Amino acid sequence: MEIHELLRDLHTKNDTKIVLLVGDGLGGLPQTPGGKTELEAAATPHLDALAKEGILGGTIPVFPGISPGSGPGHLGLFGYDPVKYLIGRGALEATGIGFELREGDVAIRCNFCTLDSAGNITDRRAGRIPTEQSAPLAIQLRQVSIPGIEIFVEPVKEHRFVVVLRGEGLEGNVADTDPQATGVPPLAPQALDPGSEKTATLCAEFVKQATELLKGESAANGCTLRGIAAKPTLPSYEEIYGLRAAAIAVYPMYKGLARLAGMDVVGDAKTLSDQMEVLKENWEKYDFFFLHFKYTDSTGEDGDFDAKVKRTEQLDTCVPAIMELGPDVFICTGDHSTPAMLAGHSWHPVPTLLWAKHCRTDRCESFGEAECLHGGLGQIEAKYLMSLALANAGRLNKFGA
Amino acid sequence: MEIHELLRDLHTKNDTKIVLLVGDGLGGLPQTPGGKTELEAAATPHLDALAKEGILGGTIPVFPGISPGSGPGHLGLFGYDPVKYLIGRGALEATGIGFELREGDVAIRCNFCTLDSAGNITDRRAGRIPTEQSAPLAIQLRQVSIPGIEIFVEPVKEHRFVVVLRGEGLEGNVADTDPQATGVPPLAPQALDPGSEKTATLCAEFVKQATELLKGESAANGCTLRGIAAKPTLPSYEEIYGLRAAAIAVYPMYKGLARLAGMDVVGDAKTLSDQMEVLKENWEKYDFFFLHFKYTDSTGEDGDFDAKVKRTEQLDTCVPAIMELGPDVFICTGDHSTPAMLAGHSWHPVPTLLWAKHCRTDRCESFGEAECLHGGLGQIEAKYLMSLALANAGRLNKFGA
Repeated sequence: MEIHELLRDLHTKNDTKIVLLVGDGLGGLPQTPGGKTELEAAATPHLDALAKEGILGGTIPVFPGISPGSGPGHLGLFGYDPVKYLIGRGALEATGIGFELREGDVAIRCNFCTLDSAGNITDRRAGRIPTEQSAPLAIQLRQVSIPGIEIFVEPVKEHRFVVVLRGEGLEGNVADTDPQATGVPPLAPQALDPGSEKTATLCAEFVKQATELLKGESAANGCTLRGIAAKPTLPSYEEIYGLRAAAIAVYPMYKGLARLAGMDVVGDAKTLSDQMEVLKENWEKYDFFFLHFKYTDSTGEDGDFDAKVKRTEQLDTCVPAIMELGPDVFICTGDHSTPAMLAGHSWHPVPTLLWAKHCRTDRCESFGEAECLHGGLGQIEAKYLMSLALANAGRLNKFGA
Repeated sequence: MEIHELLRDLHTKNDTKIVLLVGDGLGGLPQTPGGKTELEAAATPHLDALAKEGILGGTIPVFPGISPGSGPGHLGLFGYDPVKYLIGRGALEATGIGFELREGDVAIRCNFCTLDSAGNITDRRAGRIPTEQSAPLAIQLRQVSIPGIEIFVEPVKEHRFVVVLRGEGLEGNVADTDPQATGVPPLAPQALDPGSEKTATLCAEFVKQATELLKGESAANGCTLRGIAAKPTLPSYEEIYGLRAAAIAVYPMYKGLARLAGMDVVGDAKTLSDQMEVLKENWEKYDFFFLHFKYTDSTGEDGDFDAKVKRTEQLDTCVPAIMELGPDVFICTGDHSTPAMLAGHSWHPVPTLLWAKHCRTDRCESFGEAECLHGGLGQIEAKYLMSLALANAGRLNKFGA
């Protein structure tokens, strides 16, 4: 039996509030053997105070050794087995820009590129064409027309745009057309299973018409398709957990992920303090709040240890505003580790703090990787965090007699 | 692959003895932040001595966050995945009073109640009618007769009795008829799936005839049906572990659970010291002994921290009598936590002690929740305890070449 089958039956409702604060890529590594990680080096007095009262541990995003992308990383935190629920990048990007995918839709991340007269790629990102120039081009591509199919073309940013195909019998297993090289033409769309043949044919027709429409444009005269994916079907937070859930994020990707889980994306925060305002405004309307902070990941990706330390300290500053609202359960963790040392996502367990009245605290004194190793949560798969959150919120009935 | 498929092949027999001492609801919580749990506050010199020599850890009854009832809690300890093997309350109660359920039987927990002249419930438990009065009434209900069906009616205690339906094509998914309120009539039995329609019809007929038979009785003139359930099918201890297993328990529920796992219920102990006598008498006849102690749970359920501490100390006093017999593997744990603080079952990992010659001891000095966090067993799902017990008893062959 799967986790959700049980939680769907056991959850009950009350007026508790659960806050999940995600420092993206929170976990790290020391720069030198025996040194401190980014989180350990950062001054995080508020999280440390909660660590003393709460319970720590390490969450394993997928299973030991697996470094997840943002999709599986967040799905795990949201309680969905990330190996079972796969979300294609196209579906994620479309949802992230606010496009509400329907069942059966296929979404595609597209790049504008430049082609020479022979049709070979000269720049895979069209010189990272500014959005002011690329958006009108994307809108121009709405002229592409294929009988029996609805086609949506949405600008994103710089060289990126999204295409959504809507029609009967579309599946999403089509290979990328970006050859990952210049001096060669884009690849022909290739179906990876029989059910996706129709989608591959439509993709080829889209590219053909698009190239025609872009002919003569100097900034970008071609496009490649990537991350072609059908809308995934996830049971909603309301259904499986009985939670009215709100997502407060700045970046489209995380809003999109939250939407797929059935969360409402609330507010239009641009900064962490905006997010705190939005949290306060929506406090009475929801039971669960997902707060996403991007910069612990982006600084880690940049390989900038000191910048990640500063961003971790910034994350800590929002804690009092959250705790003032009186949550019953507060969790701070990451969707994966992004050690500056590795300048990328990693497989290391993610430091995790759970604070609640009856959490059975451990002897940990501060929030950091070494302390978390001795925490009362032990090391658990991220997908179990939601059942722990519900239990600590008194929102789960007893299983069996 | 499921645990049992492997153990069925790997187990081997020898003359070792394994004792599983279950303090029901053993795990707890401190009353105040930074305080001790019930187990930590209790003086448990014998368990502490074994903790020094043995290995500690925390067992997770089901998965993180899930608070199990006695059924799933014990099934986990017995090595059955509690999410796979579901036991309905009726089946549990029937087995617990010594009724040997057969494949296809449907068992029902029934309550005597009182009804007013309009058929509305005035007392859901018939004033907790004394057993001396309720038992004859239950026996009177053996007059209920439905062609083609065998009906067994067994008194239990106070307002409770058990009905077992035996016949062709009976399934157990029928909703409770107790409306959980007074001033309304009992609910009509409602099948929850098509396969259970016949059972629902039989239940309605039973209630109709029973109400007729009880007409005019002053102590109880109606009944409600709860926990309607078919007999679950569990592979036996003998088959999967190669163990001749004995259960020494005081309460029917735990005898019943042990019987479902194919254990022999031995003796007729009323007290912990009776249980020690029964253990001694049966020592040569069995390989595995399940000893159940109820009062760590019942005091926890009562929210009485001090009483739970005393009962935990009582549990400790039986340890020398067990160790004198020279078991090869001794395990002390609980089926779940029942913190007095919560006055109910909880999801917290259960302190677990395994003592055996080659257990690879850890640095733990005493038996308690905080020490268990640093124990060599780590935190494991309860369903893995039996394979650990067998391994420590030298009863498992190598897996694979």
